[in-house]
Amino acid sequence: MDRDDDRLSLVLSSGTDDRLTGAAVLVVGAAAMERKVEILLQFWALDSFRADRITKDHGLSPEAGTEGQTLWEWHEGMHWSEMLRQAKEIGDVSIHACSLSMDLLKIAPEDLDPLVDDVHGVAAFLAAAGAAITFV
Amino acid sequence: MDRDDDRLSLVLSSGTDDRLTGAAVLVVGAAAMERKVEILLQFWALDSFRADRITKDHGLSPEAGTEGQTLWEWHEGMHWSEMLRQAKEIGDVSIHACSLSMDLLKIAPEDLDPLVDDVHGVAAFLAAAGAAITFV
Amino acid sequence: MDRDDDRLSLVLSSGTDDRLTGAAVLVVGAAAMERKVEILLQFWALDSFRADRITKDHGLSPEAGTEGQTLWEWHEGMHWSEMLRQAKEIGDVSIHACSLSMDLLKIAPEDLDPLVDDVHGVAAFLAAAGAAITFV
Repeated sequence: MDRDDDRLSLVLSSGTDDRLTGAAVLVVGAAAMERKVEILLQFWALDSFRADRITKDHGLSPEAGTEGQTLWEWHEGMHWSEMLRQAKEIGDVSIHACSLSMDLLKIAPEDLDPLVDDVHGVAAFLAAAGAAITFV
Repeated sequence: MDRDDDRLSLVLSSGTDDRLTGAAVLVVGAAAMERKVEILLQFWALDSFRADRITKDHGLSPEAGTEGQTLWEWHEGMHWSEMLRQAKEIGDVSIHACSLSMDLLKIAPEDLDPLVDDVHGVAAFLAAAGAAITFV
Repeated sequence: MDRDDDRLSLVLSSGTDDRLTGAAVLVVGAAAMERKVEILLQFWALDSFRADRITKDHGLSPEAGTEGQTLWEWHEGMHWSEMLRQAKEIGDVSIHACSLSMDLLKIAPEDLDPLVDDVHGVAAFLAAAGAAITFV
């Protein structure tokens, strides 16, 4: 397996806390294995990375239901943004904002949390990503 | 990376305009990089490719909320079906309808938009796809 | 393509019957092609694998709408759990429960359907998985 194919390339489109946590767990794991991680933030995921609301409640997928909501609230786990911060400390993790989504959601670069490294078009992301894309 | 591993293999299951746009952006990017793209349409994605409703409003993920809905309506971007049409013009992009989903949703081949090339079983799709599957 | 890259590595996070069916179809297809399949169950997908509710109604994605709900009810197809059982019989399919999700949802190993082989951390999953992760 060459370096390109070893990397974890994630397109994050969902912005709910459950989907982002599911993705963050994979990122931490991959970073710990010294795999390079490339992340592109689209749409609602990008919206959840705004500096002024990144740790706010982003809700859960509708399927969580009342039971899931209750369990989630009582969970003492780390926040997904904290997991990603740690992954960036221990590994080679790049987080890019999708330029098309920035336009659509009227987000300026300075609105984003410092976890986000830069703004990328999808072509630049695909060039940096491995062949395999994981979409969340 | 051999030819097989270079291709982008997408299973589209969600039929909302945000998820389909997120996928279409990747398809356009991959086609522009001369990567072969194989797409299998399942369930609600397949339903959105009916000829008589492909450009109609397919809604957004529930997480979009009222704010997301409003921003989306005002966006001047291309429709995902138009992006896919352009991707097919510039690159090697095959779009297959999943035969199981055709049965389930009672869709006949003539009901589908010409963007869809043919009806495939999942085995045929997996044989044509690369090892990496992106599920949207 | 070496053995590692040939395997289908799925993270199942959604627990609705449509998403699980979409995934199960891929698993059956991959198993029939003699590809190794590694599955990690997170969150709502894990919840749907509880022994006492695996064949119960897990709902559909909200986008299914009333029309989708009606079509789904009338479908004579196999249940996704039955598809996975057959895939395990014909192929090399491992299904792991994510340990973090077990804690979060307060699920004990004995609560799970026998389809689930064991409880894994995400690191163990990533080590067993191929480079390409499919997230459903």
